Amino acid sequence: MVERQERRAVEPPSRDLEPEATLPTVRVRSPGFHTFIFRKMVMGPEPGPRPNDGDLVRVIDRDGVPLGFGLYNSKSQIPVRLISRGQEPPGPGFWESRIDEAVELRRRTLGLDEAGDAYRLVHAEGDGLSGLIVDKFGDVLSAEVFSLGVYQRIGPLMARLLDRAGAAEYRVHVDHRIAQAEMFAGRPVATEGAPEKVEIREHGVRYRVRFEGGHKTGFFCDQRDNRRGLARFCEGREVLDVCCYSGGFGLSALVNGGAKEVTGVDLDEKAVAMAKENANLNQVRMKLVHSDAFNYMRQMGADARAFGVVALDPPKLIGSRLEMDEGRKKYLDLNTLALGLVEPGGLLLTCSCSGLLPAEEFLGIVRSAARRAGRSARVLATTGAGPDHPVGLEDPEGGYLKAAWLLVGERQGRPPAVE
Amino acid sequence: MVERQERRAVEPPSRDLEPEATLPTVRVRSPGFHTFIFRKMVMGPEPGPRPNDGDLVRVIDRDGVPLGFGLYNSKSQIPVRLISRGQEPPGPGFWESRIDEAVELRRRTLGLDEAGDAYRLVHAEGDGLSGLIVDKFGDVLSAEVFSLGVYQRIGPLMARLLDRAGAAEYRVHVDHRIAQAEMFAGRPVATEGAPEKVEIREHGVRYRVRFEGGHKTGFFCDQRDNRRGLARFCEGREVLDVCCYSGGFGLSALVNGGAKEVTGVDLDEKAVAMAKENANLNQVRMKLVHSDAFNYMRQMGADARAFGVVALDPPKLIGSRLEMDEGRKKYLDLNTLALGLVEPGGLLLTCSCSGLLPAEEFLGIVRSAARRAGRSARVLATTGAGPDHPVGLEDPEGGYLKAAWLLVGERQGRPPAVE
Repeated sequence: MVERQERRAVEPPSRDLEPEATLPTVRVRSPGFHTFIFRKMVMGPEPGPRPNDGDLVRVIDRDGVPLGFGLYNSKSQIPVRLISRGQEPPGPGFWESRIDEAVELRRRTLGLDEAGDAYRLVHAEGDGLSGLIVDKFGDVLSAEVFSLGVYQRIGPLMARLLDRAGAAEYRVHVDHRIAQAEMFAGRPVATEGAPEKVEIREHGVRYRVRFEGGHKTGFFCDQRDNRRGLARFCEGREVLDVCCYSGGFGLSALVNGGAKEVTGVDLDEKAVAMAKENANLNQVRMKLVHSDAFNYMRQMGADARAFGVVALDPPKLIGSRLEMDEGRKKYLDLNTLALGLVEPGGLLLTCSCSGLLPAEEFLGIVRSAARRAGRSARVLATTGAGPDHPVGLEDPEGGYLKAAWLLVGERQGRPPAVE
Repeated sequence: MVERQERRAVEPPSRDLEPEATLPTVRVRSPGFHTFIFRKMVMGPEPGPRPNDGDLVRVIDRDGVPLGFGLYNSKSQIPVRLISRGQEPPGPGFWESRIDEAVELRRRTLGLDEAGDAYRLVHAEGDGLSGLIVDKFGDVLSAEVFSLGVYQRIGPLMARLLDRAGAAEYRVHVDHRIAQAEMFAGRPVATEGAPEKVEIREHGVRYRVRFEGGHKTGFFCDQRDNRRGLARFCEGREVLDVCCYSGGFGLSALVNGGAKEVTGVDLDEKAVAMAKENANLNQVRMKLVHSDAFNYMRQMGADARAFGVVALDPPKLIGSRLEMDEGRKKYLDLNTLALGLVEPGGLLLTCSCSGLLPAEEFLGIVRSAARRAGRSARVLATTGAGPDHPVGLEDPEGGYLKAAWLLVGERQGRPPAVE
């Protein structure tokens, strides 16, 4: 669900980044080690200065042992988000240095400007900036905000980011459910006259990113390295890009991989239109089909079609614990169908972006799918999001993206199990 | 333990690769899906032609359902190793095409000749060639054999490999425990006048590979991509290479990464000598210390030393289920010590090559280590062996190598837990 965004620039919330000299203290029960401290864990503010929503607070445990510092929001289900586990309170320049470190990691250490001009600049907990996600698309920054504390400071934070990232404009997106949960629904979402779309390059492939129709921040930077890696397998082959969204895998296969023919399939009509636009932008021909992935693959299987390379990157199929069983079943079915469509000796790149599904379990589902499909397979690599998506060691669910690279072999002697 | 190798060329076993027209049949109990079929699972040969040890056999389950084809060895604890899960018996050119596919994957698809001249050519189950591992080092192939069936055919197999890989010579190594388990101890190990050492290049770094003193096939190709990746983080930094073996991470840091200073530590005197030789070969200065990793890191910690980058790549600490508890403890201690030596903002690359330790569990141990060390950390990536080490989907223990890339943060407010 994409929130309406203000077309005209409005003044963004601009709380001073300078931390208060004296921070209120909040006591929590046995806190675990996670960045999020949920409501039932919070005992409440200590005597002394009372915290307002959005304030930076000192966090201590039941016994008074210091745990670090966090952003406070009494109305949220996550009243405290740890922002530092240090011993010293955040001092002058704290927020600025977090921003600077995040940018330096991408630009200097990882050298991502060499690869193109689209990457994730800030990955929430993974950059010690819980509540903020920012992608860079050319000279536009696209932000998503998840906490009141970050929202209050979004103006200065984005100004710093613009400066350090060498970008010109920014957009801020707040999902309406987040706004509701953090109780700032109805507030205007800040943008700074940013355009509706922008053109980016990634490893030689051009994409148009449309903010209004796009998912999340507008484009999935997390698959950058995987899109590039797929190209290696595509020379002279027919490629099927299932759930192709704006065409990433397929375009990489055509532009960088020398694929013979690429078919992209997506259920979302807007995605198909974006993929078409991107194919034109790169002056390549990509066959695009507006269809449900299950139906399309079943039909291809019935027609005994096979592809040298299949990329399967479905949207998040498990959004909550309630969806676990059904989601697992969908992954199993999709992977069974996809494995059946790969030529012997061909490649299946299969992905899951469901953070609730552990990597081992995903690979187990793929294994079951191979048995059902009666196909042997070998794993060349298991990868995830690029390093511009760091994951807090204590927040492992941030490592949501899993990708398995399978060389698919001969049909097995054992007949496919019917389940 | 390295088996004595024949210095002079001896005639290698040279069983014809052509599969017999009629294969003996072996019946197995509920076989699971693994490549290895253990003794208790084997019911025995069926009436008809009797299999000799080393023969290719047809494999059926209790109900006569075909499972594929395998190499038979009545004396082994693994009497059947599946070599094909296909419906058709291996025909003329079967072994040759397996070899050719393995070589083509590395040379054509993965383009590994671009990176240097050292990579794994054959990775056992991962290449449908259970019982055979072959690394290419320049124009020398270094093989390890794990089954009688492969041993009997090693001459023609290696001849094919030499031809396809454009190599000149080969060596074959058989661990004495394997020879005993497969009951071919005492047979001469075939080599073909191969030299004792060879010089290789990997991403611009030169190494001398010594076959006699070296581990396994002589050099660990599996860390190639990780060695290269580390360089990115080393510019101007002090780097500590713990369990440095022949110096791989440290040399990459110096030659490709522009590290300010590199210290390598290893308990094995021969490894230290190799690393020294390799540093000279690359005309760089690497400080080398012959010491136990625990003691060295404890001493550095006591001296309050810190490094911008620490690479921790210990030898296999869990060799069997009996070593699980002690091995876990060693990983915990090593990682706790290593985390304590990383500067805030620095990188720890921590590895485990224990196949019995699942990736999730290894990351859990690293998480515990971070808590004990009182350090926050973020995971940039988790990687494994390079794609020249494919893993059978049904043989997940082949994915033995795990590497976690951690950005290590500030010291945490909570004091280090004493356990």
